[in-house]
Amino acid sequence: PWGLVTLVGAGPGDAELLTLKAARVLGSAELVLYDHLVSDAVLAHIAPGAERIYVGKQSRNHTLPQEGIIELMVRLARQGRSLVRLKGGDPFVFGRGGEEAEGLAAAGIACETIPGISAAQGAAAATGIPLTHRETAGMLVYATGHLQGAQEDRTVQLDWEALARPWQTVVIYMGVGTLPVVCEQLVAHGLPETTPAALVERATLPEQRCIVGTVATLPSLGVRYGVKPPALIMIGEAVGRQVVPPGGAGMVSGPATA
Amino acid sequence: PWGLVTLVGAGPGDAELLTLKAARVLGSAELVLYDHLVSDAVLAHIAPGAERIYVGKQSRNHTLPQEGIIELMVRLARQGRSLVRLKGGDPFVFGRGGEEAEGLAAAGIACETIPGISAAQGAAAATGIPLTHRETAGMLVYATGHLQGAQEDRTVQLDWEALARPWQTVVIYMGVGTLPVVCEQLVAHGLPETTPAALVERATLPEQRCIVGTVATLPSLGVRYGVKPPALIMIGEAVGRQVVPPGGAGMVSGPATA
Repeated sequence: PWGLVTLVGAGPGDAELLTLKAARVLGSAELVLYDHLVSDAVLAHIAPGAERIYVGKQSRNHTLPQEGIIELMVRLARQGRSLVRLKGGDPFVFGRGGEEAEGLAAAGIACETIPGISAAQGAAAATGIPLTHRETAGMLVYATGHLQGAQEDRTVQLDWEALARPWQTVVIYMGVGTLPVVCEQLVAHGLPETTPAALVERATLPEQRCIVGTVATLPSLGVRYGVKPPALIMIGEAVGRQVVPPGGAGMVSGPATA
Repeated sequence: PWGLVTLVGAGPGDAELLTLKAARVLGSAELVLYDHLVSDAVLAHIAPGAERIYVGKQSRNHTLPQEGIIELMVRLARQGRSLVRLKGGDPFVFGRGGEEAEGLAAAGIACETIPGISAAQGAAAATGIPLTHRETAGMLVYATGHLQGAQEDRTVQLDWEALARPWQTVVIYMGVGTLPVVCEQLVAHGLPETTPAALVERATLPEQRCIVGTVATLPSLGVRYGVKPPALIMIGEAVGRQVVPPGGAGMVSGPATA
């Protein structure tokens, strides 16, 4: 019989943010394919005897293209091997889990999914920035700042009108490189320059840093503090409702309301 | 010394979707305040000797108003008692965690937060419906269908223009009662009637049901199958990319592409 593929969300970084189910599945796995953004502490939950295959990709340096990962999973599953596909965050939130499930289904391979805490949730909890708020943010929007298009013509394509609307919190994944464009476009599309905005680097990890400003000031703050990927951008009035938790949350520039 | 409050996300229902950190904190808690939507299987993670206080609220039957819950936490913390505030889903995604953290901070009580798998993520993983998809959904929007306003004038206030845009997945929390209005308004604001839409009842629990149709057909399907809260509405082309996992996911009406 062919093997089963389990897509597993590794969460935002802190290994304690794995779900009990993900930890159980990793602990009994025989074969795990894992990505670049999965931390060593998460990998430590994999059963000691299990085979591990690194299929990580960084923005400009794909170890295996997406199609190659699906082909590899199909080949292994057809050999009768069940496997865990471990992905940063949640497989269905910018994790390409949907494409992998489709590719597997097209080859007749069954697939199930275990969700993970997404980076936005990890960053919110670890910094005390709420994602929704009765008085200021009734909607929550996730978008990705990932550059799209061919090498020589890469740009960020986002629905600026949608993202510039009031009464919502916007979280941009993989947004460090495009932070200046994002802030400029949002203001150009009507978002007030005074709107609170935060940059959260390495959310939930000990080296987490949180830089808070406004959509007008955040790009220069990002440069001043040398923020590097992985980092998230959080934008909206709810960012101004931050309550910094005990421990300080890696605050670099003080909360927006300070 | 005053006590510390830990806001803990209980996840979408399945107790195995608690994070390791949430399970650890529940297991060592001495006092837990918990909500209506927290399942018995999650409560079973609370240390046997711990005191439990039910502060749940249902839509029309608030056991304790929000201000009362904050006052109770402040009073307990000022008695030197550390406590866990256990909330369904993620405390910062329609969980009013932000308001509770603010209320506690105003009273000088420290607060930290442990995120939880949100209902949308639980529903997506358990039904095989991706929340984002490279070809069809580059943004993910969470909104709430919760009725707002005074008793005699309750209505759902959503940014229909934003929700009717293409290239995104929209998830409406607490949307059973407002499903007809939601679908009608989205179509009136330009969303094609053929857009795939799903209703997921009791996501991640054994009795989960998943009803798939379009924004034109989902309201009548919801009535036909007698869907009751808690349930989520998922709308967008990505819903048509569903890959039903082994076990069937409680499919009632077949996937959108069938």
